[in-house]
Amino acid sequence: MDDIASDDFFAFSHSLPSFEGLGYAHNRLDRDTESRDETTLERMKAVPEARYYLFDGDQLLLREHDGRHDPLFCAEQADRLGARMDRVILLGCDPEENNAPRLATRLKNEALKALEDDRDFLLETVRGVGLKGLLPPDQLGSVAQAHSLLSWHENHPFCPKCGSRTEVALAGARRDCPNCSAMHFPRTDPVVIMLAIHRDEMGVERCLLGHHTRFDTPMYSTLAGFMEQGETLEHAVRREIEEEAGIKIGAVQYLTSQPWPFPSSLMLGCFAEAQSSGISIDPTELTEARWFTRDEVREMMRRDSSSGLPHIPGRFSIAAWLIRYWVDAG
Amino acid sequence: MDDIASDDFFAFSHSLPSFEGLGYAHNRLDRDTESRDETTLERMKAVPEARYYLFDGDQLLLREHDGRHDPLFCAEQADRLGARMDRVILLGCDPEENNAPRLATRLKNEALKALEDDRDFLLETVRGVGLKGLLPPDQLGSVAQAHSLLSWHENHPFCPKCGSRTEVALAGARRDCPNCSAMHFPRTDPVVIMLAIHRDEMGVERCLLGHHTRFDTPMYSTLAGFMEQGETLEHAVRREIEEEAGIKIGAVQYLTSQPWPFPSSLMLGCFAEAQSSGISIDPTELTEARWFTRDEVREMMRRDSSSGLPHIPGRFSIAAWLIRYWVDAG
Repeated sequence: MDDIASDDFFAFSHSLPSFEGLGYAHNRLDRDTESRDETTLERMKAVPEARYYLFDGDQLLLREHDGRHDPLFCAEQADRLGARMDRVILLGCDPEENNAPRLATRLKNEALKALEDDRDFLLETVRGVGLKGLLPPDQLGSVAQAHSLLSWHENHPFCPKCGSRTEVALAGARRDCPNCSAMHFPRTDPVVIMLAIHRDEMGVERCLLGHHTRFDTPMYSTLAGFMEQGETLEHAVRREIEEEAGIKIGAVQYLTSQPWPFPSSLMLGCFAEAQSSGISIDPTELTEARWFTRDEVREMMRRDSSSGLPHIPGRFSIAAWLIRYWVDAG
Repeated sequence: MDDIASDDFFAFSHSLPSFEGLGYAHNRLDRDTESRDETTLERMKAVPEARYYLFDGDQLLLREHDGRHDPLFCAEQADRLGARMDRVILLGCDPEENNAPRLATRLKNEALKALEDDRDFLLETVRGVGLKGLLPPDQLGSVAQAHSLLSWHENHPFCPKCGSRTEVALAGARRDCPNCSAMHFPRTDPVVIMLAIHRDEMGVERCLLGHHTRFDTPMYSTLAGFMEQGETLEHAVRREIEEEAGIKIGAVQYLTSQPWPFPSSLMLGCFAEAQSSGISIDPTELTEARWFTRDEVREMMRRDSSSGLPHIPGRFSIAAWLIRYWVDAG
């Protein structure tokens, strides 16, 4: 459940903390994928209020003025700034802006030098835009969507079934193969991310946090992993915690989800009941995993990543949301 | 939560009905994807207790004896029956059978005629194996996994990034491109499937069921749809119900999940609070959608698909599980 909802409608409902600050989770665009056809893109581009997100790789172009950041450019500006107007995709229409179309494309390489030298413009990573709060939360969802979709098109120009070059269809919502007629849809990879919780015989709860081999600060976070074919969400949670930390899991409780556009994961956030406490880590994934009490986690929550002391991820991530929710429930 | 768990561990826990009968949800194989390397497949094939699932398209080969159906064949039998022993993939090892390897492959076309004529053998669709209960529930999960994985390999022989022919890696858990070095992982498509529930001013609850354009009997079921990039599970539930039936949704409650191997969906089952009741269907998806009381649904549950009267899906599907759960909760 999220901020739209959560009254007492369901007998088993429970109130979850606010989703404010959970990155990329707010997307107000109406994609209307079902009603798209081969004329949609040109029709949307012709709307005077159409606006473009412009990317260089994983960087988003922002115009700075009065301390604010504007990520949207009209067609004429986009073209002048060096956007690839031949590779535009439609994200959707913004119902809060009179259904103005929102599109996205890449910047040409030769345009980058001028933009980097221009103090009116800023190129910031999709991750940085989120972490630094450069855009309102309900803009971040469409930036994430744009980044996932542009990445998918760039990494899928060929038909995996027959090897032919495919063509963009439905304004970017599909790629079609002119050779074998296969239709390819953008891929979303479900990922389980979960806080394992152990309650000892005294009733004291501790949560399991790991220091991942890829972390370059003393940060501890939840475990996570891609789901595999033919498993349930609950099975994936148990498998991942067992593989990474050797902990046996009982009950699994889904709480909330977050799109994670690197390139296109769906994070499914859960609590997991630890039925054992002896940790045995997978050293390719983790350098350490430990049980933490709520007081220890509260202390880590007060630190930031520059402290050099153990800390948890920033508010932006679903990992932080899960950890804070558990701490506050105690 | 599922049958392994669901005590009162979580403050907000709630007891869900049994998962017995929920198709494809039980898979006891240990895939051990993390520790696979280029020698894994040959090592597993060399284990005397290794057994193979054999498929022709979406049909599984079963040997019938004493009214029971056996889907597993040793290497020597598989080879003799006409299996493609050069296209074998590893599913995992069965911890309840001394970690015996479980593999899968296709039957050669020329082998089919003899098998169809042999009364000891039966070729049955993966769907039929499940619906007819020909195998124990904890075997169905590995059949689903095998079907998804074989389908993925067959439909992805080429690199979508560069168009070159790719090679099987990690005993079937990945495909690698020898040209551009891209690594491709099997795809799992998250799908939301949900029962919208409306409570009127008298407190009477009704659920929303639709007759899909693809149904060939008067069956009514939950709505469902593929998740799109950059949206949350909760957002996808709201979008799909609004698109298909024009109903506005408030709270969303995830309940359970089911792998659906046609070819590789992950069904995420939810309840959804209807905040409006005026139905406006998408005629490309639905021929009709209606609100049903618990009594009306109970009546439909008593009928089977051959009655010619409105009925709901069989117990096998997560749709039926969601509907029955709501009925029993009333």
